[in-house]
Amino acid sequence: MTAHPRLSINQATIKYAGLDEALRLTRDAGVQSIGLWREPVAEVGLAEAAARVADSGLRVSSHCRSGFFTAVEGPERRASIDDNRRAIEETATLAAAGAPGSVAVLVLVAGGLPEGSTDIVGARERVRDAIGELEPAARAAGVTLALEALHPMYAADRAVLSTLGQALDLAEQFPVESVGVVVDTFHVWWDPQVLEQIARAGAGGRIASYQVCDWVTPLAADVLLARGMMGDGHIDFGSLTRAVADAGYTGDVEVEIFNQQLWDADRAAVVDRTVRAFAENVPL
Amino acid sequence: MTAHPRLSINQATIKYAGLDEALRLTRDAGVQSIGLWREPVAEVGLAEAAARVADSGLRVSSHCRSGFFTAVEGPERRASIDDNRRAIEETATLAAAGAPGSVAVLVLVAGGLPEGSTDIVGARERVRDAIGELEPAARAAGVTLALEALHPMYAADRAVLSTLGQALDLAEQFPVESVGVVVDTFHVWWDPQVLEQIARAGAGGRIASYQVCDWVTPLAADVLLARGMMGDGHIDFGSLTRAVADAGYTGDVEVEIFNQQLWDADRAAVVDRTVRAFAENVPL
Repeated sequence: MTAHPRLSINQATIKYAGLDEALRLTRDAGVQSIGLWREPVAEVGLAEAAARVADSGLRVSSHCRSGFFTAVEGPERRASIDDNRRAIEETATLAAAGAPGSVAVLVLVAGGLPEGSTDIVGARERVRDAIGELEPAARAAGVTLALEALHPMYAADRAVLSTLGQALDLAEQFPVESVGVVVDTFHVWWDPQVLEQIARAGAGGRIASYQVCDWVTPLAADVLLARGMMGDGHIDFGSLTRAVADAGYTGDVEVEIFNQQLWDADRAAVVDRTVRAFAENVPL
Repeated sequence: MTAHPRLSINQATIKYAGLDEALRLTRDAGVQSIGLWREPVAEVGLAEAAARVADSGLRVSSHCRSGFFTAVEGPERRASIDDNRRAIEETATLAAAGAPGSVAVLVLVAGGLPEGSTDIVGARERVRDAIGELEPAARAAGVTLALEALHPMYAADRAVLSTLGQALDLAEQFPVESVGVVVDTFHVWWDPQVLEQIARAGAGGRIASYQVCDWVTPLAADVLLARGMMGDGHIDFGSLTRAVADAGYTGDVEVEIFNQQLWDADRAAVVDRTVRAFAENVPL
């Protein structure tokens, strides 16, 4: 089966592959684009990773991930901001190394509540402040900071940004060249406002990334690993994908699945299955 | 410790108690109000249950629960509608048996997606249609149908109503005497719009019930049982409770906790702990 030309394999779907293997499996399956993760890039070093990405001939559709902006002022917060500055530079370098059509998109997860805190409003304010601090560096580097609303079940321990509308409320406070949003079906499919918020994101030119995977029940015991292959769960990829297309998004579409069974399976087979499931379920 | 006069023990918090034990434990702890469940009422029969509630001297703050409105037309849907009609009658009977201040509030859970369906929009329409079908019966019986938005992590398999705003959009299509909403901290605490939607609910006279429990992490492996005692988790009961009070709600406040450890513990101790945790965390 020929892979869809806009399909991108996010490295997290084949988490245990190193960078070389991920590039090779993606290219061998006829996929043209890859979403990178920081850890496998760091394993080989940024310059070497960029060289290997260039050799692969693949496009880069995103760099995942950074963020975690909710610590109060102090050394932990400074370390996070510094790490995000490094991630911005990585994103620019890797996108420049990718094939034409690559984008310099850094996916950002907001972070959860600090230990012992119940102040979600304050945590959200610190996310906004961090974006304000990082945005000039992103703009200078030609990088788009892509704010990802995570499913509300992660609000306490991972991301105090929980809806696409909320992510847009934040993104729209900054220039469109440097701050956008991620639309990830797993995180937003349940939202009664999702179609209007996708339209809003598109009208403002804010869709920096579109990621797909399915919501399967019962949820995995570790809800971080609850994602499933498209078609295995409850998400209507038709309406969401048409909304993203109608909103003007023409970029790559990443498949990003955190799932222990897929991680434990043969990785070439997982990529092949992803190619087929994408063709069958995502109407591009 | 003296129990707060507006505290109500929802039977689900001491799930393995029968009706008699639940009434006794609640009264013995100095609590004045109870939220009933259908199954323990059915165990003794409605007339007998009403007599025992009357004998207890407790107020009834809600009858839990019914709903499950997302089946397509056919025998399953008809059975659900018929069961909801019975639940309306039960609610009226039990509220009439309770002490002065009892309310005839039937808590409704929307229901999830039918097996194999990804049509969440259609499922929501069937919820609206079911409310339309049941509302005249509720009004005639003096019962308020209380639509409960459940946390979005239950959208696929339990409730396609996921936010307070969405529940209000639905409730407001019907008379205020017969259709309201539940505000449950566990389900809504993460919502960036929660405070404005609580205000909206109050302004419209739509708050039929206020339920409290905490969001604890890591989530229980079975997310249905992820609730915790107030103070054990991440929810800011101050801002939510003040919002509900400012919105004009003066009714009982139920503690409803699905938690295997609490269910397995000594039930009188659980009620005592509830009384203390309520006093310490819920600023009424």
